Amino acid sequence: MSWESIAANKRQALNDSIPPEWRIPPAIFPPEDQLDVTTFPRESGFFTDRELEITSTAAPAILSHLAAGEWTSEEVARAFCKTAAVAHQLTNCLSEIFFDRAIAQAKELDVHLKQTGKTKGPFHGLPISIKDNFNLVGYDSTVGFASLVNDPATYNSTLVDLLLDAGAVLYCKTNVPTAMMIAESVNNVFGRTVNPRNRKLTSGGSSGGESALIAFGGSRIGVGTDIGGSLRIPAACTGIFTIRPSFGRFPNFQTRSGLAGQEAVLSVNGPLAKTLEEVVLWARTVVGQQPWIRDPKCLPIPWRSVEPKQKLKIAVLWHDGIVMPTPPVTRALKETVDKLKTAGHEIVTWAPTEHQDLVQTLARMFVADGGKSVRKLLEPTGEPFRPEMKMYEDATELGVYEMWQLQVTRNSLCKSYLDRWNDAGIDAVLCPTTPYSTVENGKFAYVGYTGVFNVLDYPAVSFPSGVTVDKSVDVAYADHKALSDIDAQIQNDYSADSVHGMPVNLQLVGRRLEDESVLAMTGVILQALASASGKQ
Amino acid sequence: MSWESIAANKRQALNDSIPPEWRIPPAIFPPEDQLDVTTFPRESGFFTDRELEITSTAAPAILSHLAAGEWTSEEVARAFCKTAAVAHQLTNCLSEIFFDRAIAQAKELDVHLKQTGKTKGPFHGLPISIKDNFNLVGYDSTVGFASLVNDPATYNSTLVDLLLDAGAVLYCKTNVPTAMMIAESVNNVFGRTVNPRNRKLTSGGSSGGESALIAFGGSRIGVGTDIGGSLRIPAACTGIFTIRPSFGRFPNFQTRSGLAGQEAVLSVNGPLAKTLEEVVLWARTVVGQQPWIRDPKCLPIPWRSVEPKQKLKIAVLWHDGIVMPTPPVTRALKETVDKLKTAGHEIVTWAPTEHQDLVQTLARMFVADGGKSVRKLLEPTGEPFRPEMKMYEDATELGVYEMWQLQVTRNSLCKSYLDRWNDAGIDAVLCPTTPYSTVENGKFAYVGYTGVFNVLDYPAVSFPSGVTVDKSVDVAYADHKALSDIDAQIQNDYSADSVHGMPVNLQLVGRRLEDESVLAMTGVILQALASASGKQ
Repeated sequence: MSWESIAANKRQALNDSIPPEWRIPPAIFPPEDQLDVTTFPRESGFFTDRELEITSTAAPAILSHLAAGEWTSEEVARAFCKTAAVAHQLTNCLSEIFFDRAIAQAKELDVHLKQTGKTKGPFHGLPISIKDNFNLVGYDSTVGFASLVNDPATYNSTLVDLLLDAGAVLYCKTNVPTAMMIAESVNNVFGRTVNPRNRKLTSGGSSGGESALIAFGGSRIGVGTDIGGSLRIPAACTGIFTIRPSFGRFPNFQTRSGLAGQEAVLSVNGPLAKTLEEVVLWARTVVGQQPWIRDPKCLPIPWRSVEPKQKLKIAVLWHDGIVMPTPPVTRALKETVDKLKTAGHEIVTWAPTEHQDLVQTLARMFVADGGKSVRKLLEPTGEPFRPEMKMYEDATELGVYEMWQLQVTRNSLCKSYLDRWNDAGIDAVLCPTTPYSTVENGKFAYVGYTGVFNVLDYPAVSFPSGVTVDKSVDVAYADHKALSDIDAQIQNDYSADSVHGMPVNLQLVGRRLEDESVLAMTGVILQALASASGKQ
Repeated sequence: MSWESIAANKRQALNDSIPPEWRIPPAIFPPEDQLDVTTFPRESGFFTDRELEITSTAAPAILSHLAAGEWTSEEVARAFCKTAAVAHQLTNCLSEIFFDRAIAQAKELDVHLKQTGKTKGPFHGLPISIKDNFNLVGYDSTVGFASLVNDPATYNSTLVDLLLDAGAVLYCKTNVPTAMMIAESVNNVFGRTVNPRNRKLTSGGSSGGESALIAFGGSRIGVGTDIGGSLRIPAACTGIFTIRPSFGRFPNFQTRSGLAGQEAVLSVNGPLAKTLEEVVLWARTVVGQQPWIRDPKCLPIPWRSVEPKQKLKIAVLWHDGIVMPTPPVTRALKETVDKLKTAGHEIVTWAPTEHQDLVQTLARMFVADGGKSVRKLLEPTGEPFRPEMKMYEDATELGVYEMWQLQVTRNSLCKSYLDRWNDAGIDAVLCPTTPYSTVENGKFAYVGYTGVFNVLDYPAVSFPSGVTVDKSVDVAYADHKALSDIDAQIQNDYSADSVHGMPVNLQLVGRRLEDESVLAMTGVILQALASASGKQ
């Protein structure tokens, strides 16, 4: 069968798995030119008040209602399944649907609670969506390749086992780009996921199915992965929260990779959510399950309670010397810095000394196999390289000796960055997550702001700054001297009109393996932003 | 200049750096056919009682005497420098000598203590010897290559800085094999280090300069490294203690490697010493200095105090399916198991399920660059490959794609090992460190018992079992059916006469990153051995 037929059949099967009662009636189906579909749940009349109440409640409160028996796992599961079904119809955010399994699991949890008076675990009854590459027995993990369609997993990812043991309800998998190596979520099997806040814009990638689903309201906590920005970029594109954790904090074993065995820069997973408290809940709970017992790569570091300094010393990276953030991002940085100063935090400027070398190192590591890993997944069905993956198509394989030299270079960059951090005596780096708020589908062109921290393995939070793009203010730079060709392209492509109203995320970066601390510091920053808003 | 001349000059300079007063007078110089030279310090009359008292005192007590001002740093430094000078003359264990620097540093420490009433740090005045590959500004780190002679370090290794800051006195560097990739300590620059307990036998490698020096009495604590057994094998060959820590516990940055940038199996460093308490002291102190602040690869895991279970469940690996341990090692295992049972510990048998694959994976990773790293260090001087390094000379370079597949295989072996460990519910694995007690110079042929735990990254202690080879008991196996060609060779080479009287070490292995626990369990085992001896 051709890859086109395989893909068409898979898409059909996916759509068929949505129960008829959760298909949007044609009469209320938003027209294609309706850009913002996040209003649909509240305005369409398609959802009950109870359903809306459930899906708009943050995870900790959902868990309380469930544990207290005020809500049943089944009704919670149904509310999220229904909303996810609708989200998929409007944004194409899902890759696997298993609502029946979820509802059956939820019913079991309800019985368990009734019979024992106890929850099954710390995630009892909480629906959690998972990115396509997490293996769940019986379901595909195609990561966008036609050759991996109809190849259902025969084992669970370590994280999936952990979540199920903790009582989480799994109900869907979310769309990704091919091999998870594009910063938007588009592939030849499922096509493109779009941003529910503005469907002309991208929800980012590679965890862009997750970000679209969560921003729409179809999930409270979803799990994505990040090897160059794949959690932080989608969070930024949709204005939600995430943490790219340090490697080894959350279990990553037995997930599908587009570049299996590539370890020079390490893929990690983490939660996406609308609130910081949900990200923290997820992190504390997952680490609390002692994932290192079963995942040979996990570190036995418990989730530590930290008390952040109330006066932080924050270094601001205004730009990385390669690409200038677009005007709304620079404004968000400025406004945030002002508010932080007002709140008494110390702000210094952070130079991008190693950034160019780190970005180049990352790019070389991704294609060090000459694109063979991707090619071998395309070839069985004759599926072509997507245009976004030209770098993989054109790559030349390195020998191991050259790879070792690249690792020597990377290590010395890591040392230099750490020394600079120590010498500056800073608590965190504040910087753009991407040059964009978000951007028109197909135009996402630069991952350097996130990718450097994958090479360094520093924990980094992507959080909404509270700033939204205002086309009357965020006009293109006048007289901008391009920092690079890619900068010229990005500034040229920038259209304030296109992204008007979109939220702007920023990135807060902490020391390696101090994931607790970077989350706590994000909380301090949100306080500063909130009190500044209160004053206005 | 030819590599031979470079090497001869370097050896001459090394010998010239021994002060005349510490050269062994010809009249009392042990004859070449005197095998055991460890008796020399006590029997030659060349040392004062005070010197002997100092060098035979364990490090914690030395530190107490120094802190109390009962001993000066200078006299302690002089005692160890002198003993190291003699050790070198009898075993060829050193590669760099900087006694003047050490004594000057010790004098400063004495002044510091006198003036401030405080020690400089937790290692105040303790002489610590370091393996050749640790960088100390102004001194070579040749790792046995002629091309690296007269290329003094321009920066310190992170560990060296840490030790100096903690008040340790550095006084010499110890010999290694070429590139540190042979299990004996022999190279074309410095030649061969021999075992002070029997100079026909090897002190092991690659930290075999250290083990010879410590076994002789020229150092209480020395620092070696381990990528396939390079700490544990030398400890075993000389009957002393070491721990191969999990990667990331002790700082490893800015050391010289024979295979720079190779990270598929990670090199670590650790202490060698005559007692377990000295190993623990070193580990607790080094981690207590928070090395992760300066070493980007170190893990921020403090040294944790653990209370080991008093009844352990220990799995015994009698052999790995590839090489049978020689008779004295099997006897040491048996006697140890009997004593552990007597002490109430539970013993189960551990199958070598993944060992063959792990050993093969390790070997493939070492030569994945086709031996290029080694060749590039030999070529500038025309230095030939040593015969022990034929595997590097003959290797074919892998491409990165193939390397990634090897890493996939390794990960799945790690997972399988961990699952088996969990299913068995064991606390530790007890197994041979090597197939030998020790062995004639040039005959060390198998590192599989140690190397598997490098691939797995499990902490492993090499400790003396209390058993010494008895030629009347430890006769070659009758009717042994060889497990492999290498097993046949090793059993055929075995000579009870040659190793009569040599100590036999065993290896205790714990869970990854539970270094504290494997040291504590070793203490429990030593207790069991001691009380069994008491009963006899």
